[in-house]
Amino acid sequence: MPQHSPRELPEGDPFGAATLPYGVFTTPDAPDHRRIGVRYGAYVLDAAAAAAAHGSAYAGLLDRPTLNPLLAAGRSTWQAVRAEIRTWLDGEHFHPLEEVTLHLPFEIADYVDFYASEHHATNVGRIFRPDGDALTPNWKHLPIGYHGRAGTVVVSGSPVIRPQGQRRTPEGPVFGPSTRLDIEAEVGFVVGTPAPPNTPVPLSDFREHVFGVCLVNDWSARDIQAWEYVPLGPFLGKSFATSVSAWITPLDAFDEARTAPPERTHPLLPYLDDSAAEPGGIDLRIEVTINGETVSRPPFASMYWTAAQQLAHMTVNGASLRTGDLFASGTVSGPDPDQRGCLLELTEGKGPWLEDGDEVTLTAWAPGPDGARIGLGEVTGRIAPARTSGP
Amino acid sequence: MPQHSPRELPEGDPFGAATLPYGVFTTPDAPDHRRIGVRYGAYVLDAAAAAAAHGSAYAGLLDRPTLNPLLAAGRSTWQAVRAEIRTWLDGEHFHPLEEVTLHLPFEIADYVDFYASEHHATNVGRIFRPDGDALTPNWKHLPIGYHGRAGTVVVSGSPVIRPQGQRRTPEGPVFGPSTRLDIEAEVGFVVGTPAPPNTPVPLSDFREHVFGVCLVNDWSARDIQAWEYVPLGPFLGKSFATSVSAWITPLDAFDEARTAPPERTHPLLPYLDDSAAEPGGIDLRIEVTINGETVSRPPFASMYWTAAQQLAHMTVNGASLRTGDLFASGTVSGPDPDQRGCLLELTEGKGPWLEDGDEVTLTAWAPGPDGARIGLGEVTGRIAPARTSGP
Repeated sequence: MPQHSPRELPEGDPFGAATLPYGVFTTPDAPDHRRIGVRYGAYVLDAAAAAAAHGSAYAGLLDRPTLNPLLAAGRSTWQAVRAEIRTWLDGEHFHPLEEVTLHLPFEIADYVDFYASEHHATNVGRIFRPDGDALTPNWKHLPIGYHGRAGTVVVSGSPVIRPQGQRRTPEGPVFGPSTRLDIEAEVGFVVGTPAPPNTPVPLSDFREHVFGVCLVNDWSARDIQAWEYVPLGPFLGKSFATSVSAWITPLDAFDEARTAPPERTHPLLPYLDDSAAEPGGIDLRIEVTINGETVSRPPFASMYWTAAQQLAHMTVNGASLRTGDLFASGTVSGPDPDQRGCLLELTEGKGPWLEDGDEVTLTAWAPGPDGARIGLGEVTGRIAPARTSGP
Repeated sequence: MPQHSPRELPEGDPFGAATLPYGVFTTPDAPDHRRIGVRYGAYVLDAAAAAAAHGSAYAGLLDRPTLNPLLAAGRSTWQAVRAEIRTWLDGEHFHPLEEVTLHLPFEIADYVDFYASEHHATNVGRIFRPDGDALTPNWKHLPIGYHGRAGTVVVSGSPVIRPQGQRRTPEGPVFGPSTRLDIEAEVGFVVGTPAPPNTPVPLSDFREHVFGVCLVNDWSARDIQAWEYVPLGPFLGKSFATSVSAWITPLDAFDEARTAPPERTHPLLPYLDDSAAEPGGIDLRIEVTINGETVSRPPFASMYWTAAQQLAHMTVNGASLRTGDLFASGTVSGPDPDQRGCLLELTEGKGPWLEDGDEVTLTAWAPGPDGARIGLGEVTGRIAPARTSGP
């Protein structure tokens, strides 16, 4: 097994000691041994091996094929594990990133997608409902969200096969490969500590439940979506693939990047009122590239609704939380034309859309301590042609 | 352990040898030993114990805390297990139903809820969208559905705590316990054999993938739903609790109850065209009681979209299926006023709605061989008051 001690990181590397995201990997010599790794620069620390070598009490949590046991262990354990991992960074048990295979890092329980960017909701509302108000009357009063398909969440790098479905034409609906395939640049939050039914999570308990942050590309077939989504919301237009980054960056890594959300234009009900809470935004700067060319730089700091508000809302009706629940922000779009997080907005509904072979990559970083950058793992996917066999 | 040999069942018992639904149970002497049972009249056959006693090759599939391994085993195994269980019915290993505790019978992967009754969709459309067409333009072209919250699916008998949330008033949204709590009488289908991504399930493969049928009460807070659901569909108005029957009746038990769905008024795209397929409807007669009084008798045979069409649609975009996926029909409503499956329709949107302490029970049966009745396990739930603590 190759061993490396990458004590020196390039200046400004967003995966330094202040970041330390978790993932699940295998090596070619043990392709069935999924275990937890920690990204450090261009290397992966085999956390399972390092824990065993150091006699760590957490070896049993780290030599696992998913992050779920670590997620379930709770915040004090998350903090203790992270502190211990920092002491292993000048040791052995590293693999070059390009020599490992990364896997879906956790088993997704429920997947919820929000709609938290005012700029996105306004832009999309104008395109999808040109005769009505861009924002629906509820938008400023609650973070609108809906459940997505947990079973089709895939890890970064998985091919995205062009979906098929019904789309509307003047002659009636027709069936075929989507002709309006799009991206949605989003930020995802991973639930660690569960909550039983009927115990809503107040804004102040956000950090007790949320383990970390990832990037999400919520691939969307706009033609399928436009035809199906009234009255019960998106379904097949979104359920064919949702890509998440292979790395989950702990929430604590973003302490220096906390920022106040935009000024609230409408009074909020008490369970959503964050005017006296710690700043709920995160100053994450996202970059969207298609075939290597930057097409957008969505600023996550511009989101109207925060992840803490989303979590409070999602549980206020009595819904439980499970370890592995994933909730995403919805498309991140800023006020400027080059800050929009999907092609629907970037092209004002006219396209062009994704073509077979196109590769889309999202990256993001946030300011960290002492000028460091805190990275989110990239999420990338290439469009593969629609299947040619039935139905 | 009490042993009974209930060789004689009452005439017309819907849980005879032609039904044999599966569940998961415990007994007071071994409250941690969840295992698979089969309902037979007013008794539960301990299938795990019977399999062990008979040296069955399936003992390992039956002494499990959930049905998932059996679900994953595939149709030929389902048929072989069912045939073998029939040979155990005059033996030992029975417990009176009232002496066991029934548990959620399977781990739900993704939960999808359809909207397949034309009568329901029309009635609800008139109430929620009085100024528009009752049916949206897509309704006759595809089975509309959306994802629900798998983590809040609960077994029959679980209390249903009144949800809280936002509702609209002329003075703006207010927060509090739902004042319009409703039921939805539905039929659920449980996926056994998974399907990988990009392998749509044609109508003809329905039986290869669907293990069995259950009753579902998709509790709905109409005030929360009405305020939140535009544009992304129902969310908190549905995600606080969805009750399923403790018993999953194998699909094969309904062979004699197959019935043609209503005549199609619009041409269907090939993947949904069931004009040459085996009859896709099931002649299930549902009864809804509130506090012991029958309020409705929804006929499942009246559903416009069949479960096979729903499955074909759900996978046609490339979405995979997982063992434990649950998809429900949507509210079952017939053409007559006393055949409506929710209070929203039964009271034409005016209420009264469910009160604290109300107990709602759904039961159903279908015609079986030689005049037998094939039962679905009941799904029952009692409304408990909203929590009084925060937020």
